[in-house]
Amino acid sequence: MKAIVKTAPGPGLVVRDVPKPACGPNDVLIRVHHAGVCGTDLHIYDWNPWAQGRCKPPFTVGHEFAGEIVELGSDVHEDFKTGQLVTAEGHIICGHCLQCRTGNGHVCKRTSIIGVDRNGCFAEYIVMPSGNVMLLDGIPTEIGGIMDPMGNAFHTVLSTEVSGSIVLILGCGPIGCFAVGIAKAAGAAAVIAVDVNPKRLELARKMGATRVLNPKTDNVEAAVLELSNGDGADLVCEMSGAPSALHTGFKVVRYGGRVHLLGIPDGDVPIDFANEIVFKGITIYGVIGRKMYETWNLMQRFLRSGQFDPRPTITHRFPLEMIEDAIAAIRSGSAGKVILDIGS
Amino acid sequence: MKAIVKTAPGPGLVVRDVPKPACGPNDVLIRVHHAGVCGTDLHIYDWNPWAQGRCKPPFTVGHEFAGEIVELGSDVHEDFKTGQLVTAEGHIICGHCLQCRTGNGHVCKRTSIIGVDRNGCFAEYIVMPSGNVMLLDGIPTEIGGIMDPMGNAFHTVLSTEVSGSIVLILGCGPIGCFAVGIAKAAGAAAVIAVDVNPKRLELARKMGATRVLNPKTDNVEAAVLELSNGDGADLVCEMSGAPSALHTGFKVVRYGGRVHLLGIPDGDVPIDFANEIVFKGITIYGVIGRKMYETWNLMQRFLRSGQFDPRPTITHRFPLEMIEDAIAAIRSGSAGKVILDIGS
Amino acid sequence: MKAIVKTAPGPGLVVRDVPKPACGPNDVLIRVHHAGVCGTDLHIYDWNPWAQGRCKPPFTVGHEFAGEIVELGSDVHEDFKTGQLVTAEGHIICGHCLQCRTGNGHVCKRTSIIGVDRNGCFAEYIVMPSGNVMLLDGIPTEIGGIMDPMGNAFHTVLSTEVSGSIVLILGCGPIGCFAVGIAKAAGAAAVIAVDVNPKRLELARKMGATRVLNPKTDNVEAAVLELSNGDGADLVCEMSGAPSALHTGFKVVRYGGRVHLLGIPDGDVPIDFANEIVFKGITIYGVIGRKMYETWNLMQRFLRSGQFDPRPTITHRFPLEMIEDAIAAIRSGSAGKVILDIGS
Amino acid sequence: MKAIVKTAPGPGLVVRDVPKPACGPNDVLIRVHHAGVCGTDLHIYDWNPWAQGRCKPPFTVGHEFAGEIVELGSDVHEDFKTGQLVTAEGHIICGHCLQCRTGNGHVCKRTSIIGVDRNGCFAEYIVMPSGNVMLLDGIPTEIGGIMDPMGNAFHTVLSTEVSGSIVLILGCGPIGCFAVGIAKAAGAAAVIAVDVNPKRLELARKMGATRVLNPKTDNVEAAVLELSNGDGADLVCEMSGAPSALHTGFKVVRYGGRVHLLGIPDGDVPIDFANEIVFKGITIYGVIGRKMYETWNLMQRFLRSGQFDPRPTITHRFPLEMIEDAIAAIRSGSAGKVILDIGS
Repeated sequence: MKAIVKTAPGPGLVVRDVPKPACGPNDVLIRVHHAGVCGTDLHIYDWNPWAQGRCKPPFTVGHEFAGEIVELGSDVHEDFKTGQLVTAEGHIICGHCLQCRTGNGHVCKRTSIIGVDRNGCFAEYIVMPSGNVMLLDGIPTEIGGIMDPMGNAFHTVLSTEVSGSIVLILGCGPIGCFAVGIAKAAGAAAVIAVDVNPKRLELARKMGATRVLNPKTDNVEAAVLELSNGDGADLVCEMSGAPSALHTGFKVVRYGGRVHLLGIPDGDVPIDFANEIVFKGITIYGVIGRKMYETWNLMQRFLRSGQFDPRPTITHRFPLEMIEDAIAAIRSGSAGKVILDIGS
Repeated sequence: MKAIVKTAPGPGLVVRDVPKPACGPNDVLIRVHHAGVCGTDLHIYDWNPWAQGRCKPPFTVGHEFAGEIVELGSDVHEDFKTGQLVTAEGHIICGHCLQCRTGNGHVCKRTSIIGVDRNGCFAEYIVMPSGNVMLLDGIPTEIGGIMDPMGNAFHTVLSTEVSGSIVLILGCGPIGCFAVGIAKAAGAAAVIAVDVNPKRLELARKMGATRVLNPKTDNVEAAVLELSNGDGADLVCEMSGAPSALHTGFKVVRYGGRVHLLGIPDGDVPIDFANEIVFKGITIYGVIGRKMYETWNLMQRFLRSGQFDPRPTITHRFPLEMIEDAIAAIRSGSAGKVILDIGS
Repeated sequence: MKAIVKTAPGPGLVVRDVPKPACGPNDVLIRVHHAGVCGTDLHIYDWNPWAQGRCKPPFTVGHEFAGEIVELGSDVHEDFKTGQLVTAEGHIICGHCLQCRTGNGHVCKRTSIIGVDRNGCFAEYIVMPSGNVMLLDGIPTEIGGIMDPMGNAFHTVLSTEVSGSIVLILGCGPIGCFAVGIAKAAGAAAVIAVDVNPKRLELARKMGATRVLNPKTDNVEAAVLELSNGDGADLVCEMSGAPSALHTGFKVVRYGGRVHLLGIPDGDVPIDFANEIVFKGITIYGVIGRKMYETWNLMQRFLRSGQFDPRPTITHRFPLEMIEDAIAAIRSGSAGKVILDIGS
Repeated sequence: MKAIVKTAPGPGLVVRDVPKPACGPNDVLIRVHHAGVCGTDLHIYDWNPWAQGRCKPPFTVGHEFAGEIVELGSDVHEDFKTGQLVTAEGHIICGHCLQCRTGNGHVCKRTSIIGVDRNGCFAEYIVMPSGNVMLLDGIPTEIGGIMDPMGNAFHTVLSTEVSGSIVLILGCGPIGCFAVGIAKAAGAAAVIAVDVNPKRLELARKMGATRVLNPKTDNVEAAVLELSNGDGADLVCEMSGAPSALHTGFKVVRYGGRVHLLGIPDGDVPIDFANEIVFKGITIYGVIGRKMYETWNLMQRFLRSGQFDPRPTITHRFPLEMIEDAIAAIRSGSAGKVILDIGS
């Protein structure tokens, strides 16, 4: 089958033929319809320090996808049948450590990620442990194919009660744009979206932002205070990784409010713990992956009811062979979500 | 000033002139614009057993209102100014018992309710302790005047996370109809509304119900299972007080789900604790009043943002003098919310 | 191997030789050291209506045990090794329904219970899915063998914050006695234990009850109010199933407090929802099984640290062959925990 | 009356006669028995940059105390009577801002602190708003006099569920030592206390620490992992303000665990957000003051039940006149809690 492969250390990705994976007794073999391309794939392409430290070529890349069940292992439960459309959680976890046993499998220390630590989904077929597979049940595969990053956004926004809240989204890449729409669909009183790129702000507006702000030209602090009766934001979702955004978040979150951190700053950021955190009595939550499977359950409900539609964020679609173009689109910094149409 | 007074034990209410109340140092004197009429007022009118046991005539009735600040006590803080439009929590609590000290003032055992235990708001003026007064800040007084019962609905619906949930509302009186709209605005995936009165179901539909059901003609259980993928409702809000509704709620709530009880059944209801509660692992919450003041804060945000509009539930408006007509409208069982236009 | 078997419909249990179970690829074969005998086993012995409706003889009974790993399936993870002492959760769940996917596997509708729905642990060996097995890691097998009912007690007591609380335990059978000790170890300010049997009250006292009360001779309501500064209990754990205990619980729980229900009343109990639940603003939680595996994690910590020791509740020990005596001890109503010494 | 006064900008404190304060209608006049001396008092003595920016001499210092009610304002409720022993929350809050209205009065932006922003308690008498006053009801005034800092410790430790947890206390000043005892009394499975001062570690040990560690000589990370089965601490309480302690906390908190920050670092601390926070999926909570009045309720219960006794931390007692000696004791860095015996 065709796959996009990291063949060896160093930059680049290669489209090549690889063997179709075998389906073990607890596995599900899935024919991939759609897959999402992510910043992580760019890091692997570029072979940046993180990728050098973690990945062991050769392997097939890609960790966001949806497709059709084509084969079921002998021990897989009866709720799955061939022909069903499904997506899957890409974090394969041990299931028996403290984290896995207490509802925090998303921080299992033995996590193996598809497309990073083992073969991924930029391929015609992928085999997944059945426990990671979720029925789409009416959700189109082009949406199912991006439920992994959408899940990061759900996890970030819905780890507190959002209804009636003033929510500030810092960073309007695809996950930030999803977060805007999710906060809105969950009944936020206002969703303020911030980015330095006007194209991304336009996407945020399409996703339902009450106000979009460019820190190059707008006074973010003044706008948040104006929209929050002078109190500040109830919830800040930091999705950019920019140190300046972190400081903005701590500044405009209300006393007793929450800051959820998904963005990954490069290197250390100096923090004034007294004034930015302690004296404000705030709560900070580090977001990694998706709650398994509370986040997925929420996503399925938001998507099936139609109250949230991520499609306005999809700006580019390519066939598998055009992975270079997909990577280039992400590298441009102006893309929303970039997806690969692999099969159907 | 004019007021609607319970002059003596026995049925009936009288419109009469009473002295305008004096404003103490910690009080706010409010000229009433709008007031809501409630089932409790009907009980006082009828002088039912509950009223006989609790109320001590003569007193002015009415506990839901909004109006304009016309006088401030000498010790009232500077955020209040004459001319501001305000509403108020009608439960006056002690402030220093265990419940008051730990965020549960709504169940303070020393609660004194306006229009029940002391003079109420069906009058041209009412005096309130400043701590009970809330700025409307853009919310119209016809809405402000019914924030007390709306608060019951917010308290019932939002005492758990509703976004993405399947919510079942049993009983579509005014509070049930508010609950429909609140659940919808808070991002419920589906809101199913149940009542035996088609007029009330029509109001529930206007408030945004995904599906309305009449247990006389519809199979409620089958409909809930159909809309919930066979799992049952995540949250059941029992707002009718009907024993049959209680059993329906316990039957269709999902395993591990929640049942919030606002309705007040007459007398005892036999319950099969094993099968209705314990084996299903559910949580039940008894709802009384409004959280002081978390519920009010949520209400102000939902109303100011425009994400929730209770006005479709208002079906009748009368001047103060027509209280008999207002009572009759409520007694009919087909009314939505009935309000009094008192001043402006 | 020897096992205690329900051979056919009708009263009684039989000790007989049965084949040693085979260990599947995901299973763990355990040589049983200790097992706990439970009221459920009595129901199966007596072949009461519940047992008639649910159980399908022939099968080996028993669902509480601990022992030694003697064989591991080929796909079992490397943290398990032969020779390790372990216990296991007796509820085998589907893993992919809504409840299982959202942290509520204890109410999975497809639950299969060992010793009820499939072969149990009153035998020399039992085979368990590896996911249900927990390392004892220093906890003796006589304690490990009763972690299943202890888990019910942990689940009941620790489903809210107990530190500094006034806790009322209604019913001092083995699970009630465990609950006393757990509440104490979790920092309850006072633990009040109630039972009609003086022997059980003596066990509750040994487990650390601040006060023990016999409703036949003591005024439970007065005592709770005295110990709670007139406010009532913060948490009531109903573990008796007696309707009178339910009413006592609702009466003495404080406004805004919690009632956790583990006891199973026979038939319907008439409840005054208005005064017992709604007006008091309380929360009720139905307790079934153990949270998988949050409850087990808590138990392991309480037991390994030594802060909780359940052994004072163990009043009877018998070899496997003396199951009739074990059943008789439970039937007497005066026993604490009854265990079987099966192997070592 | 005698009082310890900051008479003017610049270092030092003066014992002098000042007028006895007048008791307003909502106030309580208290004769001070015991008062606690705090690091904040040292900052005011030293007139450090924080004090220069905030305090406006002349004023009486001191914010931790207990004593006897000697006069009640005309509007104070009937639960208070002269002769009762009481303590008080020293943060006087506005009561009507968003924070005050939603259970977060401890971060009210209009907070006025006794002994900092208005006259304090290092005096024979102090007048307090009745809403801030709490009955000791059996708690001795020497303990009541230090419930303010004890409250910081309760707030830090009990803002999550502690029973069965591995708790790490970084910094064993008086509040850290209180935290050790509180965690222990709340059922922590292990409490590990860390400080560079052996005298303070000795106090922590007296307060019940499972293990005390000096980072100069002990490997803190190794010890925490050993005591936590390799998982790390469930809860880290950072009470030292040392940047190195912050990094240690982030390093040894378990994946998905919590870090509660009470200590105030000087200046900025560079943080590796990716590895210290985000990838670990942790929650951080900034602790300021005490929850009003949930924390006080918890304290009263822990103290009245006797499950927590802070007295081993009291190392120095002085009369009012010896404030210089009290300040010197704190400055030494080896003191536990220092209190003033003012009256009786």
